[in-house]
Order: sequence, then structure tokens, then C-alpha cells
Amino acid sequence: MSAFSRFTPLIQSLPATIPFVGPEAIERQRGRKVAARIGANESGFGPANSVLLAMQQAAGETWKYADPENYDLKQALASHLRISSANIAIGEGIDGLLGQIVRLVIEPGMPVVTSFGAYPTFNYHVAGHGGRLVTVPYADDREDLDGLLAAVKRENAPLVYFANPDNPMGSWWPADRIVEFANALPETTLLVLDEAYSETAPPESIPAIESLIDKPNVIRTRTFSKAYGLAGSRVGYALSTPGTTLAFDKIRNHFGMNRVGVAAAIAALADQSYLKEVIARIAASRERISRIAGDNGLQPLPSATNFVAVDCGQDATHARAIVDRLMSDHGVFIRMPGVAPLNRCIRVSAGPDAEMDLFEAALPAVLRNLAAGS
Amino acid sequence: MSAFSRFTPLIQSLPATIPFVGPEAIERQRGRKVAARIGANESGFGPANSVLLAMQQAAGETWKYADPENYDLKQALASHLRISSANIAIGEGIDGLLGQIVRLVIEPGMPVVTSFGAYPTFNYHVAGHGGRLVTVPYADDREDLDGLLAAVKRENAPLVYFANPDNPMGSWWPADRIVEFANALPETTLLVLDEAYSETAPPESIPAIESLIDKPNVIRTRTFSKAYGLAGSRVGYALSTPGTTLAFDKIRNHFGMNRVGVAAAIAALADQSYLKEVIARIAASRERISRIAGDNGLQPLPSATNFVAVDCGQDATHARAIVDRLMSDHGVFIRMPGVAPLNRCIRVSAGPDAEMDLFEAALPAVLRNLAAGS
Repeated sequence: MSAFSRFTPLIQSLPATIPFVGPEAIERQRGRKVAARIGANESGFGPANSVLLAMQQAAGETWKYADPENYDLKQALASHLRISSANIAIGEGIDGLLGQIVRLVIEPGMPVVTSFGAYPTFNYHVAGHGGRLVTVPYADDREDLDGLLAAVKRENAPLVYFANPDNPMGSWWPADRIVEFANALPETTLLVLDEAYSETAPPESIPAIESLIDKPNVIRTRTFSKAYGLAGSRVGYALSTPGTTLAFDKIRNHFGMNRVGVAAAIAALADQSYLKEVIARIAASRERISRIAGDNGLQPLPSATNFVAVDCGQDATHARAIVDRLMSDHGVFIRMPGVAPLNRCIRVSAGPDAEMDLFEAALPAVLRNLAAGS
Repeated sequence: MSAFSRFTPLIQSLPATIPFVGPEAIERQRGRKVAARIGANESGFGPANSVLLAMQQAAGETWKYADPENYDLKQALASHLRISSANIAIGEGIDGLLGQIVRLVIEPGMPVVTSFGAYPTFNYHVAGHGGRLVTVPYADDREDLDGLLAAVKRENAPLVYFANPDNPMGSWWPADRIVEFANALPETTLLVLDEAYSETAPPESIPAIESLIDKPNVIRTRTFSKAYGLAGSRVGYALSTPGTTLAFDKIRNHFGMNRVGVAAAIAALADQSYLKEVIARIAASRERISRIAGDNGLQPLPSATNFVAVDCGQDATHARAIVDRLMSDHGVFIRMPGVAPLNRCIRVSAGPDAEMDLFEAALPAVLRNLAAGS
């Protein structure tokens, strides 16, 4: 296949890859519609009605570019978090922000520390900038803070990624341990503290904003994609010192935000009572997933996120078979961790009762068929 | 201001900049609302009603990430353009695609050829990847194809940018001259042929798709932001060989597209009769802008775009004063080219009659005041 001959050596060395196969692609591959979309840690509870109304109103203004300064959204977040808008960078979801962060710090060959089996899209961006991944195994299904710190020091790494709560395992650390970890890092190491799932976590696991906001080497990333139910709107934000935050302005796509999505995020932030309600529904759904797992002889792991990792008690082949059969036989879309030993698990996103009903009906049938070798 | 100490040397060397100040920022600076938004080459005619309906329907699914393969949009574009979907890459507007293209090709210090005064956002991305801009002056308010070719050969440049029709001047070349230019380029030079304004151009100025689609060193970029009226939706696309197109998959943010915007683009593409109607309205508005300019003793330039560059007959200071006073005194937001000699002009976007009425009323008042030194 004929391609331009002079892409950079780095680009030529990269595979054409994708961090996750989307459910739409799976539907096309399998020729079967997804009936229960509980695999991508989206929120089937959706956003608030007030958000949908704001989106419909904003649609009429979609002929206008969004404000490149994202002023209104930054003001709303600053007020909500009681910080300065100068502490906030806005991006096209955490994925977009992660790409920018890696680009800000990593030159080819530089070491980047993360947990083995943590967020693949971060690794994708590291590879895309020629970084060298240094991975630390999970310990007891949690990211290993001591191990990450040791790897950072051993490698003199300029960048370390840590998600709290964690994806794909749903585990978490208490806030004081995270602050301790951040304080123990060299000033020459930038910590990406990915808090995509912060809204659904126990409050005592999320460091107070003021505990880290003055550290130039800590960037916390958050999103409207999970509890707020706006994955398709592509709005994420990063929190750090004004000096570090300003660096995003050097490389970001200033007109990259979509106007309807920004309006949705502002409306979502304003409706905290709906968020509270959804968080309760997510918690109830997590409990139901755990109960379903237990009823089928599987071991649900504790979760601070909008999903539950379920230990299926065997190897990755078995877990993969469950994931595949749930989709192929029942249209139930879930995912699973990518590497051992995490990949003994399947990962099921919280969702409305109708989706849970389908999962509850499908799982025993799949397990029965697999046990029977059929 | 305290920033992380170990950003890359390239990042540390970059200013925190913005290619364009948005009208919202101008409103905040001046403390005055924009009454006529005719400065950013958006389309005040907006998208079709069928598009708004599609957006409202898609809002209900915004809890889902968009399909990372952008399958439906690619199929629709492939059918519309009579090419393979493998010839198409989708991105967050042309701005996003330009950033990716620069990253695919440019390492620090490499020369990049463009016209002096052409699209600033392209230059921004070149700077962001450490490229060295080599600029060629406009000739008679058109980008100078012979000059661009000579600069490419002299510098052995891996990348050249050329917009047809051109922004900010609105000028254009006939299709056969562009194909000739593309064919004369070394195979080791990638041409970005930016066709953001292709829909409003004379058909004979746009090369047939098949004339360039087999060239791995040509990428044509197009957008739903201009004639389609969807600037805020952030949907652009790139056309090239399957091999070159595949390179975007190595670095793009696979889940970067917003779901409502993609639905809007698909609906917009399906409503070609509305597009035709809007193109006629844009043409009528261009004529009205030209007439207003002439009535005020200014010289409108011919335009193939959704805006008109108007030669104000003096220097940049004069043009800048017109731009500033139109906004400060009348809330009429327009822009102007950034460098000499183009910046003797102001640039006025086509728009609905109400905006044109405001412009028509404001311009003579501003010119009178400037002539009177008040």
C-alpha cells in the first residue's frame, strides 16, 4: 500500500493501532447488535434532562466555533472546585489531555513509568512520542505506589501515570497515601493523577484539591465522560499550577472543543443533585453486578468506579471466552483487562436495570455452555 | 509562575500562544457584545434543519463514545466522493488534522514551506513541532505556486502547505494549475492542499478527486465548518492514498470525535439541496459585501470563499483601526490578514442580511470618524 515515503522514523516505526475496539466495530464484525452496552465504562444512566436541554439549545449555535479560551467552562469549574481558572486546562476528554501531557514531557527514548495493565490509551500516547514504557506490576489488584516510586527513582523518569480509582481493576488508595506518593516524587518527575472515576469513589480516597494544587509536577485529570454521562461529548480537564497549566496552551488545538459538548459540561456541572442521584444508581448497579457474579460462583472485586472487575477464577482464555460469548450469543458487550494476572477478570460497567437484566440472564448460560465445552 | 521544570526543550522554547483570539474573548476585553459575528468565516446561515434534528436525536446518545472508526461518516463521504473509505481520515476539524500531519512529517529544524500570511494555525503546529517555516510572498494577492515549488526544491522541504481557495485573501487557482503543481513536487514532499472553502469555489478551481487521490504525497483537507455551517461541531476530513491515510491511525486520538458532531456531519452531507441553497446565499452575501466596500470607496477582492477581503487602500494601521472601531463602536466583529502587504485589507465573512445591515450601517460611520481623526 503506497504511503508517503518521508514520514518521520518514529512514525514509520509505529503500528496503525487502536487502544480499544469500539462496540460499533464489534457489532460490524459479529453481525450482531449490542443489546447491553456495559463494556466501555460509559454511563447508560445518561446525563441529566437539564443537560439534554442545554445541548438542544446549543445546537442552534453550532455554526459558531467554541470559545478557544473555554472561559465559561473554566469559570464554572473554578467555582465548583474553589480554585482559580488559571489552575485549569480544558481538553477533548482525558485521552486528548494525556496525549498533550506526553508530548509536553517525552522525547524519544525517555522512560515513562506506569502500572503493567493500566490505561492502554496512555501507553498508546507514550509509544506515539517514542517514550519507553517502564511498567510495575499491580500488587493485590491495586497499582503499587511503592513500586511506582522505586521505578521512577531507578529510571530518573520524567513522567509517571497513576489512576485513582484504578481502571481496569476498580481499586483505590486512601487520599493520604496518594499525597504522600506525590510528595515523595522528585520535582523532576511529573505525576499524572488520572481521576476519571473520582465522582464514584469514596470521598476519603480523593485528595483534597488544595493538597496538590500548588505542586507544579502534579497534573490531575478529570472528565465528564463517566459519572456525568457525557462520554460522547469529549470534555475533560486537567488541574495543576498556573505555570504547568499554561503549557497546554503552547500545543493544544485551541479551537478543538465542540460547542454543544462544552454547553453540556457546563449544564452537567450545574446539576449536582442529578450527579448525586446517578452516583447512587451506579453504586446500586455495582452491588447488583457483584451479586450476579457471586450467584455464578465468580468473585467480584471491590470497586470505587462505575464498573466492577470480576475474577473468573481461571486464566485469560477463560475470561476471554466469557467476554466473547456474552457478546456473540447474547449481545452483551463487556470488556476485560489486557494483561496477566489482571486478565483472569472480566470488567462490567454499571448500567440501568434493563442492561443488568440481560447480563444476569446471559452470564449463567455462557458459563454453562463453556463448562459443557459447547 | 511555577511550572514543571522538565518540559522538553522544544516546549520550553514555545510561547503560550493562540492562533486567533475568539470573538468571546474580544467581547470580554471590550465589554461589548458582538452584534454581527462576521469575522471567523463561520456560516451565520447555520446548518440545515435536518441537521439540527439529527443533533437533537444524537444528544440522547451522548453518553456513548463515538465509533472510533468513524465508520458511518467515512461510508457517507466515500459514497459522496466516489472513493474508498480507505482514502479518508476523520479529525477534529482541519485544525486537528493539520496538527497530526505536521507531527507525521516534521522533526525539529526541518523546513516547511508555506505562503507568508497564510493560515496561522498551520504555522502554529509547525512551531509546535520545532519545524522551520520557509515563507513565500503572495503574488498579486494569490499564493505563488511557482514560488512555493522553488522554495520546496531549494530547501528539500518535506512539507508544503497550500490553500485553494486561499484564506485570508479569498483568491484561487484553476484546478489544472494545482494538479500541475502537485505533479511537479518531489515525491519526498508532502503537499497539504487545504480545501476548507472548496464548496463555495468555482467548480473549475477544484481538482477532480481522481486527479490526486493516487498520490501518496498529497493530502487534501476539508471541513464541515464553513459552507456546511458546523464550525462548532469539529468535523474535518483528509483525503489521500490508503497508505498515507493509515498514518493518521498511528497518532490520532481514536475516541476524539464527539458523537453529536459526527451525527451532524452525516446529516449535513445528506442534505445537498440545503448546501446548494446556502452556497447561493453566500454568493449573494459576497456580492453585497463587495458592493458595500465599493460604496465606501474601498476595493473588494474577488473571492471563492465565504468571505471577502477588502483592500482599504492604506496601511495595516488603517485596516486595524477599521477592524477595532467596527467592533468597539458597533459590535461588528471582523478580522484582517496578519502580515504585509495583505494587511492593507480587512476580511468580512458572508452572513445573513441582519449582520450585513449592521456592517453596511457601521462601515461609513467608522471611516468618517477615522478620516476626521476622532
